[in-house]
Parts: sequence; structure tokens; C-alpha cells
Amino acid sequence: MKELRIIPVHGVAMVHEGDDLVTFLLDALGEQDETLADHDLVVVTSKVVSKSEGRVVPYDGTEEHKVALVEAESVRVLRRRGALRITETAHGFVNANAGVDLSNTDAGTAVLLPKDPDRSARRFRNEVARRCGVDIAVVITDTFGRVWRNGVTDVALGSAGLRPVLDLRGTTDANGRMLDATEVAIADEIAGAANLVLGKDQGTPFAIFRGLDDSYFGEGSVKQHIVRSPSDDLFR
Amino acid sequence: MKELRIIPVHGVAMVHEGDDLVTFLLDALGEQDETLADHDLVVVTSKVVSKSEGRVVPYDGTEEHKVALVEAESVRVLRRRGALRITETAHGFVNANAGVDLSNTDAGTAVLLPKDPDRSARRFRNEVARRCGVDIAVVITDTFGRVWRNGVTDVALGSAGLRPVLDLRGTTDANGRMLDATEVAIADEIAGAANLVLGKDQGTPFAIFRGLDDSYFGEGSVKQHIVRSPSDDLFR
Repeated sequence: MKELRIIPVHGVAMVHEGDDLVTFLLDALGEQDETLADHDLVVVTSKVVSKSEGRVVPYDGTEEHKVALVEAESVRVLRRRGALRITETAHGFVNANAGVDLSNTDAGTAVLLPKDPDRSARRFRNEVARRCGVDIAVVITDTFGRVWRNGVTDVALGSAGLRPVLDLRGTTDANGRMLDATEVAIADEIAGAANLVLGKDQGTPFAIFRGLDDSYFGEGSVKQHIVRSPSDDLFR
Repeated sequence: MKELRIIPVHGVAMVHEGDDLVTFLLDALGEQDETLADHDLVVVTSKVVSKSEGRVVPYDGTEEHKVALVEAESVRVLRRRGALRITETAHGFVNANAGVDLSNTDAGTAVLLPKDPDRSARRFRNEVARRCGVDIAVVITDTFGRVWRNGVTDVALGSAGLRPVLDLRGTTDANGRMLDATEVAIADEIAGAANLVLGKDQGTPFAIFRGLDDSYFGEGSVKQHIVRSPSDDLFR
């Protein structure tokens, strides 16, 4: 494998409903004298995807309203503690508060997750191909908590042009034995890596990955490959 | 934030009990004309830490023996399915099969997790400081499964010189509201990011991170900051 570079994109304007994110990215990249190339990967935080797609709802600031918004975004509640809900969304994501975001939003509003993040990623990728003639991959990310470990990490909500899970089954190790832990969720590793340069509230919703292995690029989606069906899950 | 570079270290020799990992790293870095600098971070995969520390046991290849090894490494079994065990280790890690590694090991052996990965990371960091006069951070990683999402990702087992969880509580967003999801597990995001360049079985147990924000460096350990106590966990 080769060196990987993760480049935050600075100077992106505030995003509102109807804005075209590809224009925002290309304008900001132009300012830093960067252009996209084949097998670059662009990480986009879900917040700006949601805003551009109008996934913003009124929020009156009360705990009761928060719980109501969360439950409306959920198909199943796994745990309740006070106003906290661990739920499963219509996408199949399990997270605290169904990804309803009350921070860094306009006053009196909450931001919901994109309806279909894989589709949002595909559109973004296709639009970059159309305008720039390059074949990139796209990952849309959000911040999730975990069980058993403190702290949040960024994970992939949607992807395009990437194999979200790298299947190493059937490959053997240096001693000729079959490998054990064999399906690597590179989409989530990419999402977390991007967060290392994006941080919180830096006005940088985009990061460019340059140097990912060519084998990472291909077909797949987060819904198809990362979301685990409840029947396969030992903790649902 | 600035650009982040993740550099895999190639050409590292096979590691055996008693080997000095810092020598292995510095020799391999020398071959690629790299030297370590202040605020570099070195990721080391736990497999080579375990081997150098002699955490290798005989394994007869049977399912029964595997289960016996796993249960000996566990303080609590959370789930059983066939020969699979989801357990909590003495460190407080929850994972499949207590991290007992049967792949890419010498024939007839299994590799256990390091006894105290934070201590292993501190020793590595101190030895680099002594020999090279530079102040680096160290993260020791292993591959874990997750609930609710398919595929494995690399996470941090131990760290030194790093704030494993970045505490953004008390910081406000662009609108002056308190941030919601506020404790970011950067140690785990770093571990996953390293796996993007290390892959499986590439003979590259080390990756160098260059360009991490200065605020990431400081005191802390995985045991103290990342491992969640069972009483705080909604799923135990």
C-alpha cells in the first residue's frame, strides 16, 4: 500500500436548501488550487447533505419535542433513558436519537438525516463525473455513538463508487491458512479518518482522500453492505 | 485543520518473542529514508506487540480448544452462538472471541491480546524519545467487530502521548449553542484510518501519522478514557 493523504477543504460557504454541493466543493477547491483526479474519494458530512435536501424541521427547544422528532424518525426503539432514545431508523441505522441534530443548526430548527444517503452520494459522484470528467468515490458521514466504548466516531451513511466492505474471504495469510476476520468496513474507517481533519464546526464539510488502494473502488452501497439485518444481530 | 498524511512502513521483519519493536520500526524507516519528528503518531498493530511480549500459546486446531482459550481470556460472556463467543476481556474490551487470534500465526499457535496495551504503548513512546529525542504519540490497534453494522474495523487497544477522547464539552457551535455529541474517540478513528494503509497481511505492522492537530497530543490512556464501565452501558 502507498501513502494516504487526507485533505480538508476550507472556505466552504454556509449551505441552505436547494444549494448545489458540488459547486460548493469545486469553488472551495479552486481557492486552494486543488482539482479532483480519478480515484480521489470525497467525504461529505451528512449535515450539509441534509440541509441542501431540505431535511430541516421546526424545533421548539423542549425535551418533549426532541423525543417526538426522534420517535418520528425511528422504526424501532431499542433503549430509553430519560430523553435519550437508542433507535433504529428507516435506513436501518442504530444510533442515539435517530441522528436528529440539534447542534449547529439555525435557531428553532433541527436537522434530520438524509432520506437516502446512498442516492445522495451517487448523485454527487455523477455530477462530479459530468462536470470534471473524473471517476471519484463519495462517502457521506455522520457522528454515531457506540456500545462498550466511550466517545463518538464518524461512520458512513451512504457511499458511491466504493466497495464499502472489503471482502477478504478466500484469501489466505502468510502461512496459507484462511484469514479469520475477513470483511473490513472500509467505508466506516474512511468516515472516521475524515473526522480527524474535519473536527467539529470548522466550516469544512468536505475532505479529499488521495492514495486509497485501487481495489477499494467499485460497486456497492452502505444500505446493501454495511447495514446489518436485525436477524443477523446478536444484540437486537 | 491541516492535511493529514498516513504513511505505511514497509519491509518490517517477522517479529518473535523478545524482539525490540522500536528497532524494527527505525530500521524499516531508515530504508525508506524517513525519520520521526515531534507530533508524529505511530500506529502499531497489536499482533506484533503480542508476539514480542510472548503472548503466544499452543493451539491444537480444534473448536473446543479455541473456545477454551477464549473463555480463559474472558471475565464475562455476553453472547454465545456455536463456537462464537462475544466476551468481555480483563482489559474491559468487548469483542468476538476475546481477541484470540488464530490467523497469520505460526502453525500450532494462537496469539492473545497484550496484557496491558497502554503500558506497551508508553514503553514504545519512551524508547523512541530516548533514542531519537522526539515526542511522538503511539496507538496500538486490533480488529474488532461491531453490533448493528457489518464488517470489522480497527480500534485502539492502547495509547500513549495522545488524548484518546477529545472532549468538546463546553465548546459552542457557530450559533453559540452548546455542542451535542461532544466526546470524539480520536484514538479509534486513528486506528481505523491506519488500517486503510496497512490492510491484512502486508508485513506492515506500523503506520506513521503526520499532520494531526496539536490539540490531539497529551495525557490519557485507552483503559481510562475509551473503555466504558458496564454500569454506563445500555447494552450489557
